[in-house]
Amino acid sequence: MGKEQIFDVAQLAHVEILTPDPDKTLWFFKELLGMSETKREGQSVYLRAYEDFYHHSLKVTEGKQAGLGHVGWRASSKPALERRVEALMKSGYGKGWIDGDYGHGDAYQFITPDGHNMEILWDVEYYQAPEGQTTKLKNRPQKRPLNGVPVRRLDHVNLLANDPTSNKQFMMDELGFRLREHLVNKDGTDGAAWLSVSPLVHELAFLGDAMGGKGRLHHVCYWYGYPQHLNDLSDLCVENGIQIEAGPGKHGISQANFLYVIEPGGNRVELFGDAGYLIFDPDWKPVAWTEEEVEKAIIWYGAPLPAEYFRYGTPQIKEPAILG
Amino acid sequence: MGKEQIFDVAQLAHVEILTPDPDKTLWFFKELLGMSETKREGQSVYLRAYEDFYHHSLKVTEGKQAGLGHVGWRASSKPALERRVEALMKSGYGKGWIDGDYGHGDAYQFITPDGHNMEILWDVEYYQAPEGQTTKLKNRPQKRPLNGVPVRRLDHVNLLANDPTSNKQFMMDELGFRLREHLVNKDGTDGAAWLSVSPLVHELAFLGDAMGGKGRLHHVCYWYGYPQHLNDLSDLCVENGIQIEAGPGKHGISQANFLYVIEPGGNRVELFGDAGYLIFDPDWKPVAWTEEEVEKAIIWYGAPLPAEYFRYGTPQIKEPAILG
Amino acid sequence: MGKEQIFDVAQLAHVEILTPDPDKTLWFFKELLGMSETKREGQSVYLRAYEDFYHHSLKVTEGKQAGLGHVGWRASSKPALERRVEALMKSGYGKGWIDGDYGHGDAYQFITPDGHNMEILWDVEYYQAPEGQTTKLKNRPQKRPLNGVPVRRLDHVNLLANDPTSNKQFMMDELGFRLREHLVNKDGTDGAAWLSVSPLVHELAFLGDAMGGKGRLHHVCYWYGYPQHLNDLSDLCVENGIQIEAGPGKHGISQANFLYVIEPGGNRVELFGDAGYLIFDPDWKPVAWTEEEVEKAIIWYGAPLPAEYFRYGTPQIKEPAILG
Amino acid sequence: MGKEQIFDVAQLAHVEILTPDPDKTLWFFKELLGMSETKREGQSVYLRAYEDFYHHSLKVTEGKQAGLGHVGWRASSKPALERRVEALMKSGYGKGWIDGDYGHGDAYQFITPDGHNMEILWDVEYYQAPEGQTTKLKNRPQKRPLNGVPVRRLDHVNLLANDPTSNKQFMMDELGFRLREHLVNKDGTDGAAWLSVSPLVHELAFLGDAMGGKGRLHHVCYWYGYPQHLNDLSDLCVENGIQIEAGPGKHGISQANFLYVIEPGGNRVELFGDAGYLIFDPDWKPVAWTEEEVEKAIIWYGAPLPAEYFRYGTPQIKEPAILG
Repeated sequence: MGKEQIFDVAQLAHVEILTPDPDKTLWFFKELLGMSETKREGQSVYLRAYEDFYHHSLKVTEGKQAGLGHVGWRASSKPALERRVEALMKSGYGKGWIDGDYGHGDAYQFITPDGHNMEILWDVEYYQAPEGQTTKLKNRPQKRPLNGVPVRRLDHVNLLANDPTSNKQFMMDELGFRLREHLVNKDGTDGAAWLSVSPLVHELAFLGDAMGGKGRLHHVCYWYGYPQHLNDLSDLCVENGIQIEAGPGKHGISQANFLYVIEPGGNRVELFGDAGYLIFDPDWKPVAWTEEEVEKAIIWYGAPLPAEYFRYGTPQIKEPAILG
Repeated sequence: MGKEQIFDVAQLAHVEILTPDPDKTLWFFKELLGMSETKREGQSVYLRAYEDFYHHSLKVTEGKQAGLGHVGWRASSKPALERRVEALMKSGYGKGWIDGDYGHGDAYQFITPDGHNMEILWDVEYYQAPEGQTTKLKNRPQKRPLNGVPVRRLDHVNLLANDPTSNKQFMMDELGFRLREHLVNKDGTDGAAWLSVSPLVHELAFLGDAMGGKGRLHHVCYWYGYPQHLNDLSDLCVENGIQIEAGPGKHGISQANFLYVIEPGGNRVELFGDAGYLIFDPDWKPVAWTEEEVEKAIIWYGAPLPAEYFRYGTPQIKEPAILG
Repeated sequence: MGKEQIFDVAQLAHVEILTPDPDKTLWFFKELLGMSETKREGQSVYLRAYEDFYHHSLKVTEGKQAGLGHVGWRASSKPALERRVEALMKSGYGKGWIDGDYGHGDAYQFITPDGHNMEILWDVEYYQAPEGQTTKLKNRPQKRPLNGVPVRRLDHVNLLANDPTSNKQFMMDELGFRLREHLVNKDGTDGAAWLSVSPLVHELAFLGDAMGGKGRLHHVCYWYGYPQHLNDLSDLCVENGIQIEAGPGKHGISQANFLYVIEPGGNRVELFGDAGYLIFDPDWKPVAWTEEEVEKAIIWYGAPLPAEYFRYGTPQIKEPAILG
Repeated sequence: MGKEQIFDVAQLAHVEILTPDPDKTLWFFKELLGMSETKREGQSVYLRAYEDFYHHSLKVTEGKQAGLGHVGWRASSKPALERRVEALMKSGYGKGWIDGDYGHGDAYQFITPDGHNMEILWDVEYYQAPEGQTTKLKNRPQKRPLNGVPVRRLDHVNLLANDPTSNKQFMMDELGFRLREHLVNKDGTDGAAWLSVSPLVHELAFLGDAMGGKGRLHHVCYWYGYPQHLNDLSDLCVENGIQIEAGPGKHGISQANFLYVIEPGGNRVELFGDAGYLIFDPDWKPVAWTEEEVEKAIIWYGAPLPAEYFRYGTPQIKEPAILG
């Protein structure tokens, strides 16, 4: 081996979600997850976790139904951005440049083969804490909040896709993602794939859409880093009528301590209670889980995930387009 | 901004330490930290943590006194290795190729300006668990051990240096390390520097040697990822007469939950109880702590580090060569 | 209110369980739960956790099938013992005095209305750590062990009973137990009852036996006090083929962080990962959960318990004597 | 042994502290510790933690300087109260009955030999959560709060005393406290004593007053039960300028995970991050720590307590009345 990798995408910069009930969705992210609002404009509110360094990591936009707005990636440099845009243009999935948004400059928009909206950008606006919110902890962009069980940073996004294999390949070929783990069907296709541009096991996953939808969101994940906080948040969710779908438990894939909740607008949100394991090996052989091994892959210990986990996404589909 | 980074070094692969008391040193790493022995040859024993993927991450070699043997880095690819070797040769700090060691192939040896022995390599031997030690958790190379409070993987190495600034610059220029945080003296030089090639805040740190030594080891660090394990290990250390130097506590720099113990051979070993914070920003501005801010930098909460922390390293120096 | 309570029973002293596979049962308790053996005689082995103060808290006896041997209670004083024996004699459930066993003196044997064997005693033998196992932590009877995830002390026992109400009443009337929480059926009888003689929510629970058995064991519980240890033990159980029935999760009743595993002999063992809540109120009104409220009573957060939880006990019954 | 104990005192019911800065003191207890206000009358505000069952557990009263108001104990029954009052009257330390206060009925006041104000009572008012604060967790008196790192219940109070021995003896003789652990001076007197009426190691401690004061408060302690919450609160304290005196660390005595902070009014407040160990043995031999053993008694692991820990109390004394 030893072939050279592409290092042109640095990180997941932000995610936009749609919600039919912005007030309750904002209550969830602000009061329970301790996120702060940095901008409100039109139908959108921009939020960040207290250890997110940029203007925002979550854009909450009012919509008729819950779902994904778009996913924003930050390139490793300006030349790296240009290289990726060139590749995207050639791929046929490029859409074109926009002037940017609050918190970042020019961005190049594209779609995945499944139709998820994405963009890649370089220029970002760094968050500056207002007086009273500055901290002596110089690697933390603001004081730790006093409300809820505050999340620390955006971790990853998980997307439903009709064909995980082609979407995985697109992200690997055009953007330099590395395949870290996957569920492999008997026919050799991917039932699901976990991909990253960093030692994290994933900033992005594709999960087969059992309902036959297109471009749907499975979940967005924020990071705590401490297992106790999943227990603390679970307690607060039950007290406040927020639906816990599954967890706290431990995944086999990524080894992460997880909790899945449904925010009041209907989108699934995951919380990570540890760092799982990190991949530093530059020649990593993707971990392939067969259908026989899938049970331990999904849950290492803790209760099995409910059936809805594999069917529910946003926007919601009540009747499968194909047999799930 | 936006200049392109070097991505040629992927990770800290292994550390060799010297000990005058190998039996007790091995008892510490094997029985308390749950590490396993993969090879014993001559005066050396090769050890790995249960989530280390390669043949070993620690080589314990008998020596007259405690100290650093060498630090081994893995390149990102074979061409990346060749680029770095070329740069090292030009730097004047290259020493030459060796045929490798148990667990890895050809390695290029070099020294830091301060004289620490290092090497860089590409070919590694992956650990294969023997029967009875294989696990269904396919991203874990062996079963979690039953003894002690088992560490999961090698995290970083911290070296004492007469002049942190020049050593930092050498690692940045020749190997592509990024400066993440540093203590800045009033004269603009670095009192200490934390460097990484990944989102970890550091795989390598240089700390000014108050005793005026050369090429000394401050500590090697293994990773747990859970704060409770620092408490558990502390309990076992007190029960078994292993000296705890400091902690559990929380650093400002890196935000890590730490514990420092002195292994029976005399080397300082750090344990990390969480993931601290991770740096995904490709355009990171190093966090600079001034002398006035140093207290919060070293300890965010918990007791101050003892004075010996800044003076003790291995091999030990009893009288400072310069006024400390 | 303000009526005077009986304070004659001080604590759960020990539990005897039966196992058809003593070797594997002992491996479980000694290697995974870190318990130590203090005596082996005939078909029995005596074990204790490292913070149990007496000779043993668990007696493992070989038997044709898994199940309960007996439950041992320690009186608050010698006069208290005499008062309770007098009451038990009058109750018709007394069996008579025995000369004691390894680790304790004379004990008075009795049965519950459901037929569980119990005894009450005063004289106990305190554990004395052998050389090498003594600790400087003078309130801990021995060093913390190096193997497994060591449990700290016996916590409680949960018994299946055909009629929880009469068994509850027997323990309250004859032994001074206080009712802390109960599931109340629509007809006013108890579906289950949690009882204690201390601020613990229970040292003893009776759960309705859905299979119509008599004198069966639901589970014995050991205590950690730290949630992380439930995760650590779960990991080791999966690695070593020990069946996890449920958890980690959080009960509503008692508020405890729990884990249920089946030891290799077939008995259910619970582990507690925190102290739940403690009851200091001397005029406590038992918490009554109706059938509508039972779900939150059993699981505050985490997955529902599997159906087997309410049917499986030892000795095992495959066909219900009555319709479950 | 086997002599019968007195079971007439059930629990620590409440503590009153004095503060020269009620606004900031209340901010600390309400915003950081998540306590709620149940009454405000005159110079006093009544607070409770979210798992305190009565009207209040803390009364904050404005005063010229910080210090102890009084300590309130709840008897085990009305007859038990009468027995204790009779004993207190005979002891010469009784003061007389008061009509009660918000949250409780008639109380009998007395002083310790050192002069601390105490009272004992039976009738209490149970907290009833207002609409919106009720919870489905029926053993919890209100919803878990959303602000700060909320404490769960009052744990214990620690008092400075010129002569711990006589104060200890008074509480044992007149109120039935059991001695659990003590520091024993070379002359056989107590340097400090930890006493309880329950399996807790202490609801009350006396520590020798190195400054020669009378009736001073060392600290009041609230309980979390989870070590992570000490880390979370430490983080918030540093962010918000609340002085951390010591910890998080682990005591030898009581084995508790502790954190000491100074609330803005000047009183020391301790937080407990676990349950330590519990004493169920009805014939407990007090753990005696000699002067040689004191270091491990005070701190099992973690940094030594600062010298001020042994000198600072409220009201503050700047110059020792006797040589400390």
